[in-house]
Amino acid sequence: MDERLTVIFSRRSIRVYTPEPVSEQDLQGLLEAGMAAPSASNRKPWHFVAVTDRETLRALADAHPYGKMLARAGAAIAVCGDPGISTWWVQDCSAATENILIAAAALGLGAVWLGSHGNPEREHAIRGVLGIPDSVGVLSLLSIGHPAEEKPPRTQYDASRVHRGRW
Amino acid sequence: MDERLTVIFSRRSIRVYTPEPVSEQDLQGLLEAGMAAPSASNRKPWHFVAVTDRETLRALADAHPYGKMLARAGAAIAVCGDPGISTWWVQDCSAATENILIAAAALGLGAVWLGSHGNPEREHAIRGVLGIPDSVGVLSLLSIGHPAEEKPPRTQYDASRVHRGRW
Repeated sequence: MDERLTVIFSRRSIRVYTPEPVSEQDLQGLLEAGMAAPSASNRKPWHFVAVTDRETLRALADAHPYGKMLARAGAAIAVCGDPGISTWWVQDCSAATENILIAAAALGLGAVWLGSHGNPEREHAIRGVLGIPDSVGVLSLLSIGHPAEEKPPRTQYDASRVHRGRW
Repeated sequence: MDERLTVIFSRRSIRVYTPEPVSEQDLQGLLEAGMAAPSASNRKPWHFVAVTDRETLRALADAHPYGKMLARAGAAIAVCGDPGISTWWVQDCSAATENILIAAAALGLGAVWLGSHGNPEREHAIRGVLGIPDSVGVLSLLSIGHPAEEKPPRTQYDASRVHRGRW
Protein backbone atom coordinates (compact mmCIF):
# COMPACT_ATOMS: atom_id res chain seq x y z
CA MET A 1 0.00 0.00 0.00
CA ASP A 2 1.31 3.43 -0.99
CA GLU A 3 2.09 5.41 2.19
CA ARG A 4 0.67 8.56 0.67
CA LEU A 5 -2.73 6.87 0.75
CA THR A 6 -2.57 5.77 4.39
CA VAL A 7 -5.33 8.09 5.55
CA ILE A 8 -7.72 6.49 3.06
CA PHE A 9 -6.77 2.96 4.12
CA SER A 10 -7.03 3.90 7.81
CA ARG A 11 -10.69 4.81 7.48
CA ARG A 12 -12.33 1.82 9.15
CA SER A 13 -15.78 1.35 10.64
CA ILE A 14 -15.27 2.20 14.33
CA ARG A 15 -18.17 1.41 16.65
CA VAL A 16 -16.59 1.55 20.14
CA TYR A 17 -15.61 4.89 21.68
CA THR A 18 -14.01 6.35 24.80
CA PRO A 19 -16.11 8.80 26.86
CA GLU A 20 -14.05 11.77 25.56
CA PRO A 21 -16.25 14.36 23.81
CA VAL A 22 -15.75 15.29 20.16
CA SER A 23 -14.42 18.86 20.28
CA GLU A 24 -16.14 21.75 18.52
CA GLN A 25 -12.97 22.22 16.47
CA ASP A 26 -13.04 18.63 15.26
CA LEU A 27 -16.77 18.78 14.53
CA GLN A 28 -16.19 21.93 12.51
CA GLY A 29 -13.41 20.18 10.57
CA LEU A 30 -15.70 17.25 9.77
CA LEU A 31 -18.38 19.59 8.43
CA GLU A 32 -15.84 21.56 6.38
CA ALA A 33 -14.61 18.26 4.91
CA GLY A 34 -18.15 17.20 4.06
CA MET A 35 -18.76 20.44 2.21
CA ALA A 36 -15.47 20.06 0.32
CA ALA A 37 -16.97 17.14 -1.60
CA PRO A 38 -17.68 17.50 -5.32
CA SER A 39 -21.30 17.80 -6.42
CA ALA A 40 -22.94 17.62 -9.83
CA SER A 41 -22.83 21.10 -11.40
CA ASN A 42 -21.58 22.28 -7.98
CA ARG A 43 -25.18 22.48 -6.73
CA LYS A 44 -24.24 21.36 -3.19
CA PRO A 45 -27.65 19.84 -2.31
CA TRP A 46 -26.57 18.85 1.20
CA HIS A 47 -27.62 19.70 4.75
CA PHE A 48 -25.97 18.38 7.91
CA VAL A 49 -27.60 17.82 11.29
CA ALA A 50 -24.84 17.68 13.92
CA VAL A 51 -25.74 16.21 17.29
CA THR A 52 -23.76 16.06 20.54
CA ASP A 53 -26.65 16.05 23.04
CA ARG A 54 -26.74 12.73 24.91
CA GLU A 55 -30.53 12.38 24.94
CA THR A 56 -30.75 12.90 21.18
CA LEU A 57 -27.88 10.46 20.59
CA ARG A 58 -29.78 7.87 22.63
CA ALA A 59 -32.93 8.51 20.60
CA LEU A 60 -30.95 8.04 17.37
CA ALA A 61 -29.55 4.77 18.76
CA ASP A 62 -33.14 3.56 19.12
CA ALA A 63 -34.12 4.87 15.67
CA HIS A 64 -31.60 2.78 13.67
CA PRO A 65 -31.46 -1.03 13.85
CA TYR A 66 -27.62 -1.01 13.66
CA GLY A 67 -27.16 2.21 15.61
CA LYS A 68 -26.78 1.02 19.20
CA MET A 69 -23.25 2.52 19.39
CA LEU A 70 -24.75 6.01 19.01
CA ALA A 71 -25.85 5.92 22.67
CA ARG A 72 -22.14 6.15 23.64
CA ALA A 73 -20.85 8.17 20.66
CA GLY A 74 -19.42 11.67 21.07
CA ALA A 75 -21.35 12.99 18.10
CA ALA A 76 -23.61 12.09 15.22
CA ILE A 77 -24.03 13.74 11.86
CA ALA A 78 -27.05 13.11 9.64
CA VAL A 79 -26.12 13.85 6.03
CA CYS A 80 -29.24 15.03 4.23
CA GLY A 81 -29.97 16.07 0.66
CA ASP A 82 -32.58 18.23 -0.99
CA PRO A 83 -33.88 16.61 -4.22
CA GLY A 84 -35.29 20.03 -5.12
CA ILE A 85 -31.73 21.36 -5.44
CA SER A 86 -30.29 18.42 -7.39
CA THR A 87 -31.48 15.11 -8.80
CA TRP A 88 -27.92 13.85 -8.12
CA TRP A 89 -28.27 14.38 -4.38
CA VAL A 90 -27.71 10.72 -3.43
CA GLN A 91 -24.32 10.59 -5.15
CA ASP A 92 -23.29 14.03 -3.89
CA CYS A 93 -24.29 13.27 -0.30
CA SER A 94 -22.50 9.91 -0.48
CA ALA A 95 -19.31 11.74 -1.47
CA ALA A 96 -19.83 14.20 1.41
CA THR A 97 -20.36 11.26 3.78
CA GLU A 98 -17.14 9.60 2.64
CA ASN A 99 -15.25 12.89 3.04
CA ILE A 100 -16.43 13.12 6.65
CA LEU A 101 -15.34 9.54 7.34
CA ILE A 102 -11.86 10.13 5.89
CA ALA A 103 -11.62 13.40 7.83
CA ALA A 104 -12.50 11.55 11.02
CA ALA A 105 -9.62 9.14 10.38
CA ALA A 106 -7.28 12.07 9.66
CA LEU A 107 -8.26 13.70 12.98
CA GLY A 108 -7.73 10.50 14.99
CA LEU A 109 -11.45 9.96 15.46
CA GLY A 110 -13.41 6.82 14.65
CA ALA A 111 -16.70 6.75 12.78
CA VAL A 112 -19.14 4.48 11.03
CA TRP A 113 -21.65 5.02 8.18
CA LEU A 114 -25.16 3.89 9.04
CA GLY A 115 -27.25 3.59 5.89
CA SER A 116 -30.57 5.39 5.78
CA HIS A 117 -31.90 6.42 2.34
CA GLY A 118 -32.91 3.24 0.56
CA ASN A 119 -34.63 1.95 3.68
CA PRO A 120 -37.83 4.00 4.21
CA GLU A 121 -38.35 2.85 7.81
CA ARG A 122 -34.90 4.00 8.92
CA GLU A 123 -35.15 7.26 7.03
CA HIS A 124 -38.56 7.98 8.60
CA ALA A 125 -37.35 7.20 12.11
CA ILE A 126 -34.25 9.44 11.84
CA ARG A 127 -36.33 12.21 10.28
CA GLY A 128 -38.69 12.03 13.24
CA VAL A 129 -35.96 12.26 15.91
CA LEU A 130 -34.19 15.19 14.22
CA GLY A 131 -37.17 17.12 12.83
CA ILE A 132 -35.94 16.85 9.24
CA PRO A 133 -38.55 18.06 6.70
CA ASP A 134 -40.33 15.43 4.58
CA SER A 135 -39.00 17.14 1.44
CA VAL A 136 -35.39 16.36 2.41
CA GLY A 137 -33.78 12.93 2.09
CA VAL A 138 -31.68 11.44 4.88
CA LEU A 139 -28.75 9.82 3.09
CA SER A 140 -26.79 8.58 6.06
CA LEU A 141 -26.27 8.79 9.78
CA LEU A 142 -22.68 8.91 11.04
CA SER A 143 -21.66 7.79 14.52
CA ILE A 144 -18.45 9.51 15.63
CA GLY A 145 -16.18 9.35 18.69
CA HIS A 146 -12.70 8.81 20.01
CA PRO A 147 -11.84 5.21 19.12
CA ALA A 148 -11.73 2.52 21.79
CA GLU A 149 -11.07 -0.23 19.24
CA GLU A 150 -8.13 -0.54 16.84
CA LYS A 151 -8.39 -1.73 13.28
CA PRO A 152 -5.38 -1.76 10.95
CA PRO A 153 -5.37 0.18 7.66
CA ARG A 154 -6.49 -1.97 4.73
CA THR A 155 -7.63 -2.02 1.16
CA GLN A 156 -10.00 -4.76 0.15
CA TYR A 157 -8.39 -4.82 -3.31
CA ASP A 158 -9.72 -7.65 -5.47
CA ALA A 159 -8.05 -8.05 -8.88
CA SER A 160 -11.13 -9.86 -10.23
CA ARG A 161 -13.05 -6.56 -10.01
CA VAL A 162 -10.57 -4.71 -12.24
CA HIS A 163 -11.11 -4.74 -16.00
CA ARG A 164 -8.26 -3.33 -18.07
CA GLY A 165 -9.03 -1.45 -21.29
CA ARG A 166 -12.58 -2.76 -21.45
CA TRP A 167 -14.86 -5.14 -19.49
CA MET B 1 -8.87 24.92 7.61
CA ASP B 2 -7.28 22.18 9.73
CA GLU B 3 -3.95 21.18 8.13
CA ARG B 4 -4.61 17.52 8.84
CA LEU B 5 -7.47 17.71 6.36
CA THR B 6 -5.50 19.34 3.54
CA VAL B 7 -5.65 16.31 1.26
CA ILE B 8 -9.45 16.44 1.36
CA PHE B 9 -9.55 20.17 0.64
CA SER B 10 -6.99 19.79 -2.16
CA ARG B 11 -9.27 17.46 -4.13
CA ARG B 12 -10.46 19.79 -6.87
CA SER B 13 -11.97 19.06 -10.28
CA ILE B 14 -8.94 19.06 -12.61
CA ARG B 15 -9.70 18.97 -16.33
CA VAL B 16 -6.36 20.00 -17.95
CA TYR B 17 -3.41 17.62 -17.96
CA THR B 18 0.22 17.39 -19.07
CA PRO B 19 1.12 14.65 -21.59
CA GLU B 20 2.83 12.59 -18.86
CA PRO B 21 1.28 9.11 -18.54
CA VAL B 22 -0.33 7.89 -15.33
CA SER B 23 2.03 5.21 -14.01
CA GLU B 24 0.92 1.65 -13.35
CA GLN B 25 1.89 2.16 -9.71
CA ASP B 26 -0.35 5.20 -9.38
CA LEU B 27 -3.22 3.47 -11.19
CA GLN B 28 -2.88 0.54 -8.81
CA GLY B 29 -2.97 2.95 -5.85
CA LEU B 30 -6.15 4.55 -7.15
CA LEU B 31 -7.86 1.16 -7.49
CA GLU B 32 -6.72 0.08 -4.02
CA ALA B 33 -8.13 3.33 -2.64
CA GLY B 34 -11.44 2.74 -4.43
CA MET B 35 -11.73 -0.71 -2.91
CA ALA B 36 -10.93 0.66 0.56
CA ALA B 37 -14.30 2.42 0.58
CA PRO B 38 -16.99 1.25 2.99
CA SER B 39 -19.97 -0.62 1.57
CA ALA B 40 -23.29 -1.64 3.05
CA SER B 41 -22.87 -5.00 4.85
CA ASN B 42 -19.38 -5.04 3.24
CA ARG B 43 -20.88 -6.46 0.03
CA LYS B 44 -18.44 -4.54 -2.22
CA PRO B 45 -20.73 -4.37 -5.28
CA TRP B 46 -18.16 -2.50 -7.39
CA HIS B 47 -16.26 -3.16 -10.60
CA PHE B 48 -13.66 -0.82 -12.14
CA VAL B 49 -12.82 -0.45 -15.82
CA ALA B 50 -9.37 1.17 -16.05
CA VAL B 51 -8.40 2.66 -19.40
CA THR B 52 -5.08 4.08 -20.60
CA ASP B 53 -5.39 3.33 -24.34
CA ARG B 54 -5.58 6.59 -26.33
CA GLU B 55 -8.21 5.40 -28.81
CA THR B 56 -10.54 4.27 -26.03
CA LEU B 57 -9.98 7.53 -24.13
CA ARG B 58 -10.97 9.42 -27.29
CA ALA B 59 -14.10 7.28 -27.67
CA LEU B 60 -15.03 8.01 -24.03
CA ALA B 61 -14.52 11.73 -24.69
CA ASP B 62 -17.14 11.46 -27.43
CA ALA B 63 -19.47 9.36 -25.27
CA HIS B 64 -19.91 11.93 -22.46
CA PRO B 65 -21.21 15.47 -23.09
CA TYR B 66 -18.81 16.95 -20.50
CA GLY B 67 -15.96 14.52 -21.20
CA LYS B 68 -13.88 16.30 -23.82
CA MET B 69 -10.84 16.36 -21.49
CA LEU B 70 -10.70 12.56 -21.63
CA ALA B 71 -9.12 12.76 -25.09
CA ARG B 72 -5.97 14.17 -23.42
CA ALA B 73 -6.21 12.39 -20.06
CA GLY B 74 -3.62 9.87 -18.91
CA ALA B 75 -6.27 7.45 -17.71
CA ALA B 76 -9.95 6.92 -17.10
CA ILE B 77 -11.72 4.74 -14.58
CA ALA B 78 -15.38 3.78 -14.94
CA VAL B 79 -16.77 2.93 -11.51
CA CYS B 80 -19.51 0.35 -11.96
CA GLY B 81 -21.86 -1.41 -9.58
CA ASP B 82 -23.79 -4.65 -9.66
CA PRO B 83 -27.34 -4.20 -8.31
CA GLY B 84 -27.48 -8.00 -8.02
CA ILE B 85 -24.81 -7.82 -5.29
CA SER B 86 -26.28 -4.90 -3.35
CA THR B 87 -29.28 -2.60 -3.55
CA TRP B 88 -26.98 0.05 -1.97
CA TRP B 89 -24.60 0.02 -4.94
CA VAL B 90 -25.11 3.70 -5.87
CA GLN B 91 -24.01 4.90 -2.44
CA ASP B 92 -21.17 2.37 -2.20
CA CYS B 93 -19.84 3.22 -5.66
CA SER B 94 -20.09 6.94 -4.90
CA ALA B 95 -17.90 6.39 -1.83
CA ALA B 96 -15.43 4.40 -3.96
CA THR B 97 -15.42 7.21 -6.53
CA GLU B 98 -14.69 9.82 -3.87
CA ASN B 99 -11.89 7.66 -2.46
CA ILE B 100 -10.27 7.53 -5.90
CA LEU B 101 -10.53 11.31 -6.26
CA ILE B 102 -8.93 11.93 -2.88
CA ALA B 103 -6.24 9.36 -3.67
CA ALA B 104 -5.52 11.18 -6.94
CA ALA B 105 -4.97 14.40 -4.97
CA ALA B 106 -2.72 12.57 -2.49
CA LEU B 107 -0.61 11.20 -5.38
CA GLY B 108 -0.25 14.62 -7.03
CA LEU B 109 -2.62 13.70 -9.85
CA GLY B 110 -5.68 15.65 -10.98
CA ALA B 111 -9.06 14.13 -11.68
CA VAL B 112 -12.69 14.94 -12.25
CA TRP B 113 -15.95 13.03 -11.62
CA LEU B 114 -18.17 12.79 -14.69
CA GLY B 115 -21.68 11.75 -13.68
CA SER B 116 -23.22 8.77 -15.45
CA HIS B 117 -25.89 6.80 -13.57
CA GLY B 118 -28.96 9.02 -13.31
CA ASN B 119 -28.61 9.97 -16.98
CA PRO B 120 -29.58 6.93 -19.11
CA GLU B 121 -28.05 8.30 -22.34
CA ARG B 122 -24.62 8.81 -20.79
CA GLU B 123 -24.73 5.47 -19.03
CA HIS B 124 -25.69 3.70 -22.28
CA ALA B 125 -22.93 5.41 -24.27
CA ILE B 126 -20.18 4.56 -21.75
CA ARG B 127 -21.45 1.00 -21.47
CA GLY B 128 -21.18 0.68 -25.25
CA VAL B 129 -17.59 1.96 -25.47
CA LEU B 130 -16.34 -0.23 -22.63
CA GLY B 131 -18.43 -3.37 -23.19
CA ILE B 132 -20.01 -3.20 -19.75
CA PRO B 133 -22.89 -5.71 -19.30
CA ASP B 134 -26.45 -4.36 -19.23
CA SER B 135 -26.89 -5.86 -15.77
CA VAL B 136 -24.21 -3.57 -14.31
CA GLY B 137 -24.70 0.13 -13.56
CA VAL B 138 -22.12 2.73 -14.56
CA LEU B 139 -21.99 5.07 -11.59
CA SER B 140 -19.28 7.45 -12.75
CA LEU B 141 -16.49 8.02 -15.21
CA LEU B 142 -13.27 9.54 -13.85
CA SER B 143 -10.82 11.47 -16.00
CA ILE B 144 -7.30 11.37 -14.52
CA GLY B 145 -3.93 12.88 -15.41
CA HIS B 146 -0.99 14.95 -14.25
CA PRO B 147 -2.44 18.40 -13.58
CA ALA B 148 -1.73 21.30 -15.93
CA GLU B 149 -4.00 23.65 -14.00
CA GLU B 150 -3.71 24.73 -10.36
CA LYS B 151 -6.63 25.17 -8.02
CA PRO B 152 -6.13 26.05 -4.35
CA PRO B 153 -7.47 23.79 -1.58
CA ARG B 154 -10.91 24.84 -0.40
CA THR B 155 -13.97 23.92 1.57
CA GLN B 156 -17.27 25.29 0.38
CA TYR B 157 -18.44 25.45 4.01
CA ASP B 158 -21.81 27.14 4.36
CA ALA B 159 -23.05 27.65 7.94
CA SER B 160 -26.65 27.85 6.72
CA ARG B 161 -26.47 24.14 5.84
CA VAL B 162 -25.53 23.11 9.39
CA HIS B 163 -28.30 22.34 11.89
CA ARG B 164 -27.17 21.90 15.48
CA GLY B 165 -29.00 19.41 17.70
CA ARG B 166 -31.95 19.13 15.35
CA TRP B 167 -33.13 20.68 12.05
